Amino acid sequence: MAVETISRVLPAAVGRPRVLIVGGGFAGVTVAQQLERLLSRGAAEIHLVSQENYFLFQPMLPEVAGGSIEAHHILGPLRQLCPRTTVTVGQARSIDLERKTLSVSHGPREAETIIPYDMLVLAVGSVTNFSELTGMAQHALGLKTVGDALYLRNHVIAMLEEADVETDPTRRHELLTFIVVGGGFSGVETVAQVNDFVREAARHYHRINPAEIRVMLLHALDRILPELTEGLARVAHRHLERRGVEVWVNRALQAVTEREAILDKNESVPTCTLVATIGAATNPLVASLGVEKDQRGRVVVTPELEVLGQNGVWALGDCAAVPNKASGALAPPTAQFAQREGKLVAKNVVAAIRGGRKAAFSYPGLGQFVSLGRRSAVAEIVRFKFSGFLAWFLWRTVYLSKLPTAARKTRVALDWTLDLLFGRDITQLPLARGERIGRAHFEPGDTIVRQGEIGNQFYVITEGEVEVIRLGEDGTEVVINQLGVGEYFGEVALLRAARRNATVRAKTDVNVLTLGRDDFSLLARSWSSLREQLQAAAEARSDGSDATGVPR
Amino acid sequence: MAVETISRVLPAAVGRPRVLIVGGGFAGVTVAQQLERLLSRGAAEIHLVSQENYFLFQPMLPEVAGGSIEAHHILGPLRQLCPRTTVTVGQARSIDLERKTLSVSHGPREAETIIPYDMLVLAVGSVTNFSELTGMAQHALGLKTVGDALYLRNHVIAMLEEADVETDPTRRHELLTFIVVGGGFSGVETVAQVNDFVREAARHYHRINPAEIRVMLLHALDRILPELTEGLARVAHRHLERRGVEVWVNRALQAVTEREAILDKNESVPTCTLVATIGAATNPLVASLGVEKDQRGRVVVTPELEVLGQNGVWALGDCAAVPNKASGALAPPTAQFAQREGKLVAKNVVAAIRGGRKAAFSYPGLGQFVSLGRRSAVAEIVRFKFSGFLAWFLWRTVYLSKLPTAARKTRVALDWTLDLLFGRDITQLPLARGERIGRAHFEPGDTIVRQGEIGNQFYVITEGEVEVIRLGEDGTEVVINQLGVGEYFGEVALLRAARRNATVRAKTDVNVLTLGRDDFSLLARSWSSLREQLQAAAEARSDGSDATGVPR
Repeated sequence: MAVETISRVLPAAVGRPRVLIVGGGFAGVTVAQQLERLLSRGAAEIHLVSQENYFLFQPMLPEVAGGSIEAHHILGPLRQLCPRTTVTVGQARSIDLERKTLSVSHGPREAETIIPYDMLVLAVGSVTNFSELTGMAQHALGLKTVGDALYLRNHVIAMLEEADVETDPTRRHELLTFIVVGGGFSGVETVAQVNDFVREAARHYHRINPAEIRVMLLHALDRILPELTEGLARVAHRHLERRGVEVWVNRALQAVTEREAILDKNESVPTCTLVATIGAATNPLVASLGVEKDQRGRVVVTPELEVLGQNGVWALGDCAAVPNKASGALAPPTAQFAQREGKLVAKNVVAAIRGGRKAAFSYPGLGQFVSLGRRSAVAEIVRFKFSGFLAWFLWRTVYLSKLPTAARKTRVALDWTLDLLFGRDITQLPLARGERIGRAHFEPGDTIVRQGEIGNQFYVITEGEVEVIRLGEDGTEVVINQLGVGEYFGEVALLRAARRNATVRAKTDVNVLTLGRDDFSLLARSWSSLREQLQAAAEARSDGSDATGVPR
Repeated sequence: MAVETISRVLPAAVGRPRVLIVGGGFAGVTVAQQLERLLSRGAAEIHLVSQENYFLFQPMLPEVAGGSIEAHHILGPLRQLCPRTTVTVGQARSIDLERKTLSVSHGPREAETIIPYDMLVLAVGSVTNFSELTGMAQHALGLKTVGDALYLRNHVIAMLEEADVETDPTRRHELLTFIVVGGGFSGVETVAQVNDFVREAARHYHRINPAEIRVMLLHALDRILPELTEGLARVAHRHLERRGVEVWVNRALQAVTEREAILDKNESVPTCTLVATIGAATNPLVASLGVEKDQRGRVVVTPELEVLGQNGVWALGDCAAVPNKASGALAPPTAQFAQREGKLVAKNVVAAIRGGRKAAFSYPGLGQFVSLGRRSAVAEIVRFKFSGFLAWFLWRTVYLSKLPTAARKTRVALDWTLDLLFGRDITQLPLARGERIGRAHFEPGDTIVRQGEIGNQFYVITEGEVEVIRLGEDGTEVVINQLGVGEYFGEVALLRAARRNATVRAKTDVNVLTLGRDDFSLLARSWSSLREQLQAAAEARSDGSDATGVPR
């Protein structure tokens, strides 16, 4: 098979423009849904690229971490939400603004598909970056994906399990202290949920005394919830304290280890659980894009949300610096604004297709809710302020109404009801299969690595023999090497981020161990004697199979 | 800190015997629940050791894989099911029958607790062993844990996603063929669920034609469901075929690769999904135990379910060869029998405590159900046979009644109802966090590895310096080595399965990469140049720090 079959190029949409939306969050999904509403089938092909096959209702992540909503119920399958949109699930790798193409990699072998577009909508959101504080990247738990929420819930249960059999009081302190960093919306909702969950779950552990449990909210500024008025923030603050949360304001986190959080003023708090709701950073796809960005790495757009200097390219949501005419400031990175921006971008895309006039973004915002755990919340809607049960009831009603699909509305409503009736669940949902290093078996003649592919695995042969083959442009094959038990291949493409430059084929029955790209690169870069050994092996051969992704 | 603090020994129960149950499945949980019922608080301490903190309602795993029941809903928290039992979550590592102790390891650092017992109940079940067929261990998917069920469901969705963007017809065949191996109860229920799920989910994929989907059941004997009468098995067979499942009988699987299943008669079927419901093997805890076992590795027990020659030690469920007086044969490895055996063992334990007479196991069995997917099943109850909707309704009713706790009964009943109303969900639930290689940060003075611990990590230093310290019996410390960036430690304890023989402490701020025991051992054993390099480094030093778990 020749090299060019590796990347597939999607044919252009025939007789109608292709609108390509990158990102399946609030912003991207709203654009797709509105375009489906505004345009007839023949008027445009709507194509959405997303890393996951679902839309995540992000504002309810703390509820999932706290176990009061099932993870599945806040996920909406993209294909069901946007039935007329063509959905491609994969990782958007790079955009060629000149040729108007997007490169996407997908599937277990990271096959590449090139998608040509006529119009492009960037809605890729932000990513989390914990590297600014010592030890954060290693030990802080995030809360940005469903995986994070499930992991946090399991982690809290693991701490209770371990404390239940631990006899050393110092270690019990570490295990039973739970810290959330960041006193914004997300931090406050998270600490409320973690607090409810851990205190309720702990009742089932015979050997844990409730007084041993410590839940803390750490905030660097002088009051929590800076997004709300001071009075309402104070109500929330007091409410958390009544529930048993220690709220520390004006305190900065300086470092994290496996067993403690190190604060300013030379203080350290023993803990094995630190959840960070801070640290938003630029999405790498946006970072690598040659367009104007603001100092926080967000794409600069016109009032109509078109990317500066790029006709037919829009950006919105958390990855864009969106000027809001109504407030005179930039729009905040919330779901509410992302949805409004999505509606406007859809209208402006239609205007661009039909030749109409584009509108500028202007939205005053409707108000904000913060859930404080069971049956309590604070809310600020237009100029009205609520707290307690009424606010909580409003919060639920609004969120339920915003959940995608009737199935989800019903399921979440039932989750809440059952939660009230039966209490929370303390089962640890298993998240990963035990094995991290992969294994694979090949029959004689099977291709293991294909020349031209994007490499994503490193291989060690545990049984059998393989041939390393160079394919010529004309389809000829030259065997350039043979490898046996204990030998390895596939490292060069990973280390140099190059494509496979040779094919590796099984000569006999072959068993291999596989190690993923990220894992392998991390090890090979950090472990000096391993790196030297890989380099020495590379230099021992010089048959021109440089950068091949196979041993030289 | 001295070495002896590493293993904790649980004090013996004061003034009452400790009954220690190992295993939290149907058998173990029934024993605990019955003992709670039969014995007053003062009469015995009931202690249960389980690898998970939940009981798994195993017969419904195929429903979870098929997405018609939420994973959480078939899990029952052990502490809620057995409120008077002390539950320790951890891995039972070894039993000392002479000293009457069980060693359990638990928590992220695999701390060890020794639990002394007066009576022991072994209910550890069986494990899966795929190593008998070429390529099975590498490529077959199992269905024994909740993790397996979620993984299978996600895998099926990943195949649909990939097929949706694939243009090569050969690759599409591989992606859209789903094979289940084994035509027993579990295989039939699994293939029915996979078939329903994949055919329903595929409707949402614009670029998949339903005719491309192939679902197969592969069975080595001449008819499926050998546990049922021939007539009823034929009904099930025909029903599966009507639903679009290809049922292949008398066909043996010979090997599996990433892209095909290789059968006898030189035939191969292209597929990326092979689910194996075969391959039960002896639990390692039982395998290492010095008691009499039958040729299938099950513990031989008396009619009263006491382990042969071991007074006060019982065995039941899948790990034991249980003679059934009612049938004159061994009891089958089903949930129904495990529960009955559990009741008997509880009674006999009470008899042993109080000095009463022990009873022999005798149970004719009530009947069996096989669910065939939506609204259909076959059943054989006493001598009555049912099929179709009635059987399915009975199946549900019986299973619902057997589910632990009212919360679960309600939730599963609702799951089924919502499933009928709204159809299945095609969201891929994220199972693992991306990172496989761990990272950790330590502050100066922090202990990274502790002498005497069971080692479960290998470390590479990416920043900072550490000291390797040998602790004397009297608490003195001798620094035997210093290590810096790019150097590694912790390998020897892993390679030799020994305890840490030295302490490693951070001298400065230290960042490390960590690799788990299994991953590291697999790599170090298989990759010959890595192994040689580790050995050479070991020989270059000879200061007596042999078998330390730190570099020599």
